[in-house]
Amino acid sequence: MAKVGMLGAGFIGDFYTFSINGHRNRDRVHVVYSRDEARGKAFAAKHGIPKWTTSMKEAVTDPEVDIVVIGLPNNLHLEAVKLAAAAKKAVFCTKPLGRNAAEAKKILDIVEEAGVTHGYMEDLVYTPKTLKALKSVETGAIGQVIWARSRETHPGPHSDWFWTKAVSGGGVLLDMGCHCIEISRSYIGKKIRPVEAMCWADTLVKPIEAEDNALGWVRYENGAVGQFEVSWTFRGGMDLRDEVMGTDGTIWVNNFLRTGFEMFTAVGKKGYVAEKAETEKGWLFPVGDEVVELGYTDMFTDMFNAFESKTEPKETFYDGYIVNEIMDACYRSAKSKKWEPVRLKTWRGRDKTEKINALRDFDKDNLLVKEETMPDGTVKLILKNKKTGKISQRVKK
Amino acid sequence: MAKVGMLGAGFIGDFYTFSINGHRNRDRVHVVYSRDEARGKAFAAKHGIPKWTTSMKEAVTDPEVDIVVIGLPNNLHLEAVKLAAAAKKAVFCTKPLGRNAAEAKKILDIVEEAGVTHGYMEDLVYTPKTLKALKSVETGAIGQVIWARSRETHPGPHSDWFWTKAVSGGGVLLDMGCHCIEISRSYIGKKIRPVEAMCWADTLVKPIEAEDNALGWVRYENGAVGQFEVSWTFRGGMDLRDEVMGTDGTIWVNNFLRTGFEMFTAVGKKGYVAEKAETEKGWLFPVGDEVVELGYTDMFTDMFNAFESKTEPKETFYDGYIVNEIMDACYRSAKSKKWEPVRLKTWRGRDKTEKINALRDFDKDNLLVKEETMPDGTVKLILKNKKTGKISQRVKK
Amino acid sequence: MAKVGMLGAGFIGDFYTFSINGHRNRDRVHVVYSRDEARGKAFAAKHGIPKWTTSMKEAVTDPEVDIVVIGLPNNLHLEAVKLAAAAKKAVFCTKPLGRNAAEAKKILDIVEEAGVTHGYMEDLVYTPKTLKALKSVETGAIGQVIWARSRETHPGPHSDWFWTKAVSGGGVLLDMGCHCIEISRSYIGKKIRPVEAMCWADTLVKPIEAEDNALGWVRYENGAVGQFEVSWTFRGGMDLRDEVMGTDGTIWVNNFLRTGFEMFTAVGKKGYVAEKAETEKGWLFPVGDEVVELGYTDMFTDMFNAFESKTEPKETFYDGYIVNEIMDACYRSAKSKKWEPVRLKTWRGRDKTEKINALRDFDKDNLLVKEETMPDGTVKLILKNKKTGKISQRVKK
Amino acid sequence: MAKVGMLGAGFIGDFYTFSINGHRNRDRVHVVYSRDEARGKAFAAKHGIPKWTTSMKEAVTDPEVDIVVIGLPNNLHLEAVKLAAAAKKAVFCTKPLGRNAAEAKKILDIVEEAGVTHGYMEDLVYTPKTLKALKSVETGAIGQVIWARSRETHPGPHSDWFWTKAVSGGGVLLDMGCHCIEISRSYIGKKIRPVEAMCWADTLVKPIEAEDNALGWVRYENGAVGQFEVSWTFRGGMDLRDEVMGTDGTIWVNNFLRTGFEMFTAVGKKGYVAEKAETEKGWLFPVGDEVVELGYTDMFTDMFNAFESKTEPKETFYDGYIVNEIMDACYRSAKSKKWEPVRLKTWRGRDKTEKINALRDFDKDNLLVKEETMPDGTVKLILKNKKTGKISQRVKK
Repeated sequence: MAKVGMLGAGFIGDFYTFSINGHRNRDRVHVVYSRDEARGKAFAAKHGIPKWTTSMKEAVTDPEVDIVVIGLPNNLHLEAVKLAAAAKKAVFCTKPLGRNAAEAKKILDIVEEAGVTHGYMEDLVYTPKTLKALKSVETGAIGQVIWARSRETHPGPHSDWFWTKAVSGGGVLLDMGCHCIEISRSYIGKKIRPVEAMCWADTLVKPIEAEDNALGWVRYENGAVGQFEVSWTFRGGMDLRDEVMGTDGTIWVNNFLRTGFEMFTAVGKKGYVAEKAETEKGWLFPVGDEVVELGYTDMFTDMFNAFESKTEPKETFYDGYIVNEIMDACYRSAKSKKWEPVRLKTWRGRDKTEKINALRDFDKDNLLVKEETMPDGTVKLILKNKKTGKISQRVKK
Repeated sequence: MAKVGMLGAGFIGDFYTFSINGHRNRDRVHVVYSRDEARGKAFAAKHGIPKWTTSMKEAVTDPEVDIVVIGLPNNLHLEAVKLAAAAKKAVFCTKPLGRNAAEAKKILDIVEEAGVTHGYMEDLVYTPKTLKALKSVETGAIGQVIWARSRETHPGPHSDWFWTKAVSGGGVLLDMGCHCIEISRSYIGKKIRPVEAMCWADTLVKPIEAEDNALGWVRYENGAVGQFEVSWTFRGGMDLRDEVMGTDGTIWVNNFLRTGFEMFTAVGKKGYVAEKAETEKGWLFPVGDEVVELGYTDMFTDMFNAFESKTEPKETFYDGYIVNEIMDACYRSAKSKKWEPVRLKTWRGRDKTEKINALRDFDKDNLLVKEETMPDGTVKLILKNKKTGKISQRVKK
Repeated sequence: MAKVGMLGAGFIGDFYTFSINGHRNRDRVHVVYSRDEARGKAFAAKHGIPKWTTSMKEAVTDPEVDIVVIGLPNNLHLEAVKLAAAAKKAVFCTKPLGRNAAEAKKILDIVEEAGVTHGYMEDLVYTPKTLKALKSVETGAIGQVIWARSRETHPGPHSDWFWTKAVSGGGVLLDMGCHCIEISRSYIGKKIRPVEAMCWADTLVKPIEAEDNALGWVRYENGAVGQFEVSWTFRGGMDLRDEVMGTDGTIWVNNFLRTGFEMFTAVGKKGYVAEKAETEKGWLFPVGDEVVELGYTDMFTDMFNAFESKTEPKETFYDGYIVNEIMDACYRSAKSKKWEPVRLKTWRGRDKTEKINALRDFDKDNLLVKEETMPDGTVKLILKNKKTGKISQRVKK
Repeated sequence: MAKVGMLGAGFIGDFYTFSINGHRNRDRVHVVYSRDEARGKAFAAKHGIPKWTTSMKEAVTDPEVDIVVIGLPNNLHLEAVKLAAAAKKAVFCTKPLGRNAAEAKKILDIVEEAGVTHGYMEDLVYTPKTLKALKSVETGAIGQVIWARSRETHPGPHSDWFWTKAVSGGGVLLDMGCHCIEISRSYIGKKIRPVEAMCWADTLVKPIEAEDNALGWVRYENGAVGQFEVSWTFRGGMDLRDEVMGTDGTIWVNNFLRTGFEMFTAVGKKGYVAEKAETEKGWLFPVGDEVVELGYTDMFTDMFNAFESKTEPKETFYDGYIVNEIMDACYRSAKSKKWEPVRLKTWRGRDKTEKINALRDFDKDNLLVKEETMPDGTVKLILKNKKTGKISQRVKK
């Protein structure tokens, strides 16, 4: 059993606490910190948390607290991590790790110097579907991954601070691109070096300084491409989808808006429908248990287990740092309008990864380009002569 | 924290144990009973269970065991419940409660006399989607429920005993109709009396004595109909779907074969795909976390909480008994080829429920039959004169 | 090229005329009949039809008219068919053929005596998906069909006459059950005799005399069951789905509400969405080309081709008559609360169809009950000893 | 009625001829040209075409031929168009118009000088779903389009010539990017100037010279982005999907692999499943009528109607030229690794289009950033002060 100091009493704090205190879990949030006393108190009451405080330090240093969970605005991550590291507490931080790579590197260095367990709370690589999909990729079910698209779009964040660049550090790219980048990276292979990034970012709809829409590609050393699509101006709910192409297969994951639960209501649901749902009438698409489906349950399982067994969780601050570096390259690219290198100050993956290779001999003279069953039942082969390079077709009955 | 004596080391015992020992749960399976020593030992090793035994009594009476979980063939439920009740242990039993209503009634009487907590482990009313859907129904989001279809079909059960009527007590109706009947009943309202049942059952495909396909309707006092469709001869995986029609809305729940996770593999997944999946290549439709999606997590949460708080779980042996009575009526109907009354020996719901009523005045002279927007944008009204009964149409611009 | 006399200028007449005059078709509606002159005139103008009339006879006997298409209320089918037969014109009639089997038989006899081409306009067995699915069934792709569910539900018909039993002859069972019954019959096999029917019908929501909801099963001689579900009280649009179980496969067809076209609009589409759509805002699910998707294009192709080549279309008045007999049995069953025989006055299918049989030898001693790949990769076999009847299991590595 | 000279007897010629000669159409393919006599003869026999020839000129100049339809490899388009223009015949050409923009411009100039009707056969903007979706966009149902993704991926083309760069002119970008680019352009607005393009293209899987995968963005003058994704290495069939984001809504169109028709077969369909399907067993996803769903029916309707009425079809060679220019910019970008301008030699759209603008006043002091219903039923507003630029939140009960 672990006791948690929860920093932050906002939307994400709610999700974290629902997850930690949920079901028949043995862990407990012991104290909650909020700048606003009324808010902290209400949060504690709602979740049955024994203590609340307006002092971050008090929450972190509470002697019963084993683990500090950071659910604060981006500009407070560094401060909170410093406190936790100083108190030698395990620390799990929400995404993005920093407002930029430099800040993320500082945060990483602090916990590594302090020697405390650290977890980067990228919940979306922990959704039950993603975990199973990643396992399938590992077993070779879809061959070598050549492309992974990750999309997160919704009508915009819940709190004012997100919309204020000085506090958040950026727009939708920073807020949600971090999710998508780490999802694609997980499919392509976290040991493979991200080499360069191309990004488009624009402020098309909202009256804000930061970008409200962004698209990007991250190219990995083996030639694979991770694609992200993020928007604060999507209409219709929250769209959380991933698509993966492998040399031998395909994966499509839909984590939110189409998961096998459809409801039509002519009268309205008279209450909460789903995170970032836009309508209360007509066709609605709730998810079952949001806390589970968004990955919180499996994320905390991994992280608390890692804490107890003194191992590393699947996602550490190192991963958070890598993601920040990729996002920095994206921001540079959005400005320069060209591919920008990803400049990693530390790389712990494979030194060198060969290019994807799926060439297949047809016979001693030819490579197989394609094999297809035709309408009349025959099989059509496209072949390439190894010597001449000439491409020809052949029909097999 | 509760300690569990698990009776049975088969397929369902696996699911129960994965759930109880899963994630960061505080409960633990303490001892497992299996007739077969090797099997019990292997099961204990796999799940990290401290003890195993070939004596059901020993498992039940183990002093550390708080709760007895029955995952045994149908013909052993009565014996296991007797042991648990004698030992004054809380007891949760898998579905169906009995092989018939008489047996179920005995089982119910035993635990009520003993005064122990009892739970009917109908996991499918606890799937996260179903729980949310039921909550929506309660809030009135779809009005009054008039029809609920529940379908469970797959290519047949895993173990030989299911296929042997003497042991199981019946065929697919008993095995899976129990799920569907309780799901429909939950949507329509558990306080509303099930009045009569109509059932078709046949052995169409498999070389067995019992039925391998069954269809049925259960009519409730308010006029609503619960429809079930069960089959052991479905091809393509496990189909678990519910559909609900209300006077003001519709609910469609798909718990298994189409939940937003799609995979194509040309090479095979080299391992487990999903419960009752039929293929290893081509398009596959895994679920994320089966234990969660099939309702086990929320079921045990409710049941263990009830045990600790000395309240009743959502599903008790009384519900199991009701379901057995409805199935008995179904079996009679399949033979007599007519609707058969449901003969409840005990009824704890509402004495009398009025007929569904959704009549709506249009004005003082007319009832509204229908209102529809036409292709040209006009609104067409179908009205019924309250006095004359004449139906007419009117176009509103 | 064929010229058409269109009887009826209502909703269905619109669909028929859009189809006949559509795309690059060579056929043309030449004259339209409507009781109401203004309506007929407007209809002609809208569709570019050269003539209109308030005399049914005039439309039918127009010398340029080759084919009479009946899109009239049910109580006028007989009269219209009489006129067409007397004029020796080919005649295609909307569904249901008659208000009951006796009327349908009269209609059938009239055209057969007159020797004119006749087509029963059951468009839903002509949807492109259904045609392809039926072809797959014929090639054996799903083995022997054991069950076919057909569902048509929506919020109720467009015109007042449908809601008035004296005119329509019945409620939703007659209006839409006819579709579903013929769809299931097509999957199971039109040569196989429908033996008996079981039906539940009730008036649950609407202030009308006839049933607004009905469910039914039709049992065929080989043991297969056709299931229908019809409702005038469904919320959320028009639900047109078919599901078929075969001994070797499964077919799911969705013709309307989920066909790969999804739209969210916060402002409304400012116009027509789809037949019987209920909402203008939020998530909408239009179909592409309704005329094609609902089967009209392929239906008229078949029927006009049959007319020109002097052959029979896929659906003739004989089929319409069979459907009416099945519905009569359903109405009797809804009253008697038991299975009722289908009493065919003429049967042109197979004299006798054997029971579905899919038994499969495993080896000389055993029948195969089931084969399943388990989580650990082993294959589990359920076998039945041919002599003893004992069922056992075996694991194959 | 129009008579067609069909140039090409390959896969696309089949689709075109099925469409033109299909259903009850009044047009007819009158002569087919194929280099290979046996092939042309077989094609004619299969489709009931009166004449065949191995002389392109003969087919084009046949006095009965009104319209020349070009279904030839890319390197023959120019020659075929010259012949048609010389013969003053209407000419419809398959996609892409040219192997590059220079060639496309020549082709455009030729038909415009000759004054013949010309159609660019971009069938995918004519799919029934796309036509309806485009109409919705025009009526304002989703507001201003800010992003349109179009995806076409499959396991590679049918014929050897596609794989040979000298003949085809390029790889998957040229082959299928042309579809996607015109689809996005149609959603964003064909009157809005495409300004610049960014493209990634690589040869990841196939042993070919040209790219087998490509991704791209096309930026329009108003800020909207058209995104394309094309691959010849996708596994699982043919994936044809479009997604559109508007300021007030969303559109998702799936034209092929998930359209409401699902089949599981344990035995195989014993024949043709669908264009570019990869498997014959397991779960399959056929479409209903491919010729309709892929847009051929509506495309020829528009083009033949335009020919008869001497107007322009929706897609002319001018559109084909624009697409080629965009693809040229993409190829430049794939090399230069930066955004490249689209260099149009002729532009017939709007001179200047303002930036997308969806700002909305909340009150006189504030702009509305976002409005959201929270779990507790309250409405949360994010506002931006017009003077200070400060963003704040407010809760409305």
